[in-house]
Amino acid sequence: MMTEPSALSHETLTERHRPTLDRALEAAGSRGYWSPYPEHPKAYGESAPAEGLAAFEAVRRTRFELDQPGTDGWAAPGEVSPYGPELGIEYPHADPDVLLPAMRAAIPAWRDAGPELRALVCLEILARISARTHEFAHAVMHTSGQAFMMALQAGGPHAQDRGLEAVAYAYAEQTRTPRAADWSKPQGKREPLELSKTFTAVPRGVALVIGCNTFPTWNGYPGLFASLATGNAVLVKPHPRAVLPLALTVRIAREVLAEAGFDPDLVCLAAERPEEGIAKTLALRPEIRIIDYTGSTAFGDWLEANARQAQVYTEKAGVNTVVVDSTDAYAAMLANLAFSLSLYSGQMCTTPQNLLIPRDGIDTDAGHKSYDEVVADLAAAVDRLLGDDARASALLGAVVNPGVRERLAAAAGLGEVALASREVANPDFPDAVVRTPVIVKQDGARKVWEGPDAEAAYLSECFGPVSFAVAVDSTAEALELLRRTVREKGAMTVGAYTTSPEVERAVEEVCLQEAAQLSLNLTGGVYVNQTAAFSDFHGSGGNPAANAALCDSAFVANRFRIIEVRRQA
Amino acid sequence: MMTEPSALSHETLTERHRPTLDRALEAAGSRGYWSPYPEHPKAYGESAPAEGLAAFEAVRRTRFELDQPGTDGWAAPGEVSPYGPELGIEYPHADPDVLLPAMRAAIPAWRDAGPELRALVCLEILARISARTHEFAHAVMHTSGQAFMMALQAGGPHAQDRGLEAVAYAYAEQTRTPRAADWSKPQGKREPLELSKTFTAVPRGVALVIGCNTFPTWNGYPGLFASLATGNAVLVKPHPRAVLPLALTVRIAREVLAEAGFDPDLVCLAAERPEEGIAKTLALRPEIRIIDYTGSTAFGDWLEANARQAQVYTEKAGVNTVVVDSTDAYAAMLANLAFSLSLYSGQMCTTPQNLLIPRDGIDTDAGHKSYDEVVADLAAAVDRLLGDDARASALLGAVVNPGVRERLAAAAGLGEVALASREVANPDFPDAVVRTPVIVKQDGARKVWEGPDAEAAYLSECFGPVSFAVAVDSTAEALELLRRTVREKGAMTVGAYTTSPEVERAVEEVCLQEAAQLSLNLTGGVYVNQTAAFSDFHGSGGNPAANAALCDSAFVANRFRIIEVRRQA
Repeated sequence: MMTEPSALSHETLTERHRPTLDRALEAAGSRGYWSPYPEHPKAYGESAPAEGLAAFEAVRRTRFELDQPGTDGWAAPGEVSPYGPELGIEYPHADPDVLLPAMRAAIPAWRDAGPELRALVCLEILARISARTHEFAHAVMHTSGQAFMMALQAGGPHAQDRGLEAVAYAYAEQTRTPRAADWSKPQGKREPLELSKTFTAVPRGVALVIGCNTFPTWNGYPGLFASLATGNAVLVKPHPRAVLPLALTVRIAREVLAEAGFDPDLVCLAAERPEEGIAKTLALRPEIRIIDYTGSTAFGDWLEANARQAQVYTEKAGVNTVVVDSTDAYAAMLANLAFSLSLYSGQMCTTPQNLLIPRDGIDTDAGHKSYDEVVADLAAAVDRLLGDDARASALLGAVVNPGVRERLAAAAGLGEVALASREVANPDFPDAVVRTPVIVKQDGARKVWEGPDAEAAYLSECFGPVSFAVAVDSTAEALELLRRTVREKGAMTVGAYTTSPEVERAVEEVCLQEAAQLSLNLTGGVYVNQTAAFSDFHGSGGNPAANAALCDSAFVANRFRIIEVRRQA
Repeated sequence: MMTEPSALSHETLTERHRPTLDRALEAAGSRGYWSPYPEHPKAYGESAPAEGLAAFEAVRRTRFELDQPGTDGWAAPGEVSPYGPELGIEYPHADPDVLLPAMRAAIPAWRDAGPELRALVCLEILARISARTHEFAHAVMHTSGQAFMMALQAGGPHAQDRGLEAVAYAYAEQTRTPRAADWSKPQGKREPLELSKTFTAVPRGVALVIGCNTFPTWNGYPGLFASLATGNAVLVKPHPRAVLPLALTVRIAREVLAEAGFDPDLVCLAAERPEEGIAKTLALRPEIRIIDYTGSTAFGDWLEANARQAQVYTEKAGVNTVVVDSTDAYAAMLANLAFSLSLYSGQMCTTPQNLLIPRDGIDTDAGHKSYDEVVADLAAAVDRLLGDDARASALLGAVVNPGVRERLAAAAGLGEVALASREVANPDFPDAVVRTPVIVKQDGARKVWEGPDAEAAYLSECFGPVSFAVAVDSTAEALELLRRTVREKGAMTVGAYTTSPEVERAVEEVCLQEAAQLSLNLTGGVYVNQTAAFSDFHGSGGNPAANAALCDSAFVANRFRIIEVRRQA
């Protein structure tokens, strides 16, 4: 790793990345469509697919060197692809008593670099990650179980977009206060009072990113880049089943930091041995001043309650609802919903779980449809979508872990099954666990969920390819159930279908009051579970599903502080 | 309170206040001197002093009507002026089970008003408060014990500045995302994907402001106006000894809200009976989603740990340090410090407590001065400043409560007294408790504060007119003690005097690393305990003295959330 310190000068980086940063700032302010990272696999060049696969294969069954301080051995987390193959990679295991002080020591020079240089270095890291998108696609696919195309897009450009978005917000917030100012206060006939002042964005310390199994890069990059861009050092603790994508990220970040003349220990990896559970230990270390976490509500709540020395940003469980009131595009609505339920086997934090459908049916362009008809037609739409095994595999990916498989099996016992889950054979990976979604009928009468002992199954997150077709007495009742669900359980997304302006206004009001992001009448190629960086907010930070949104000022503004030094002029 | 709803139209308010809002936004971005509210008592017109006093006298020994819902009786907190007189005012006592739902019901229309109209309504409230600055001066003086001129300035225009600053930051953050956007994503040869999107700033709910005794308006306005401007309803729970300034504020806010066509219950008062302690109860109510608190570390920590349903902004205790290394303006340094220690009897959260002075003395323009000489010269400077009782009273104000008097008495037992406190007779208020500061010598050797049982007296906040002249082995040791003090105890301010660029750089580095606001070599008419809105940050939000700074993006950005509604275009 011998590199010229001047290889990545501020000037070089400005030339390469300042226009992208400016365009990102503009996009986040106007919120139209924009992305600098290509979505199409062919955009990466003819040799990229083969090179990406080869790079992924080359890292398997190796020790993943990182040259971090405090490495006291090797951790083999035992990553096994949801598609079958073992990854067999060992990662450096860190002694936090050595690693954390080294990371802290790296901070002052990074702080002194200032917001612009930090942003540009982050953009260089993202550019190098982007160049290796095919390699990341395999790494994400074989840890999360996403199908290849989704792993490439969501794990590649979409994740990079979210990282860049965080960098842009961080840059904007840090530069809102000038670097220096003169202050002169008139004193009538006397001389004015005069001070000269400097303002410095200072980081909080070491930030901890606790990664998740399903979207290691997409959910990991916003916190990682927000913290790094605001001057903090970042320790990345991946989910033990999804280490590789973040380990690759850490390696690239370290290379770029070193080339730009900074201490590579600003970004380090904390890999753990099976059952070691280091997240709890790290989260309580006094050096850790920021935590970004995606995962279970239980551990998220634990972090918020216990890691009091840190700013804690959590994305936890939620129960996403779609209110079905009426539609003038019945077939398109069903197709859109069928896709939403199927994509990545419903293993997205944004996948709809509860479909609230009036017991008396709905008005549509294809005539009135009873509750049973709507449910049956939706089941048929899913069946049609997933009828071909190869196509189904490309959409479903693989079941990420045994917990999902167990919940799927148990779901059939929760009510009348409107659509049974079936096993799908993946032509390329015979060991992959691939399952189609189950749809279970439920009673959504108010007496069921308002009774003293009532805790309907659909009022808990059932993570995976499980949806509930909940029969409600009316749309008004649906909105009350929606309100209760969001307020008590949280929601990353809400969808609604209606042709009635009054219903539209009413569902909007519930979402405004309970702080949930709403998609209305989606019948085309955009799905409720997808959000686009620079335009859509992911989560709201205002209901129990997440205490932060990706990405807004609040996500970055408290990762640094402004320190003022004022001097007699 | 019969008013024309149209009296305060958006148009009228725009004409009156939009230029001020724009100027405030500009000032917060450039951070030069600016204030729209006059500091000079004569600026309010010839009749203002008499009218202000008359208005204050008229409210004494009355029931303070507010016409709030859920009023279930009257609370007589028993406010007694630190200058002697009882205020004898009764305030409405509220049943939170009625009041909080009424406040919540008022929110949607306020949310729908949008950020600009909300900001303009807030500016109208501030303008009416400003017009009654003399009345507020008496209310602040006779609850906080501030001298009249300070009560007028700090409790009047300076507090209004901080309120306006919060409104400006809130407006800026809410309007960073456009109200609507069209999104069009190219799909190669196919039709682009198109969505139309709206973005609405939605409030969190009801905000609770828990006021303090010493600066009811100055410390209360930032949170109050930040929450109101971001669409929340605000319940104001004053300190039982300083209800009147905030009750007046609530009354004015309610009048303006009603005139502008909004529900006055967007701002309500929660007064309490002696020993009722309603802050704890209110803080845990599910309706309360934001809390702003100024006061003891114990209760601030309790709020942060327990009011988990709310965003909690706290300003707590701290230990402020001045490092004395060297100076080229010895007499001016002593005069500046003497003023800082004396102003409002050291009862400011920004007053220096620990003066770290090398045991071997310091180099000055008046020759080398030993530790004993520096301390004696400082004591003499304080004596000179406060030699005349009338002038002393005008600077010291009165001791705010018995706790301060007790700490002052106990301080003399903590070490060698370099300057004894003396009683001052206030010519106008014979019952006022007025005391000059005490300066106590302390040993700041590392062995004292690093020993296993060591908890030197100067390492706790001793709120009131008590300062410690701490003898340190060297400036380097002083910086280590400064670092430990800020990191463990927190600090609202740090001061330093040095002629050495190296020492200056070193003290700056400590402040950047420990997130403390630094004033260097103040020898004129600006004091370490004063900050000016739009230019200076009050606190950093990065050390234990406060988890937020006044005012920055982080102070406002999480009081609201952006909710997006996207529709098939």
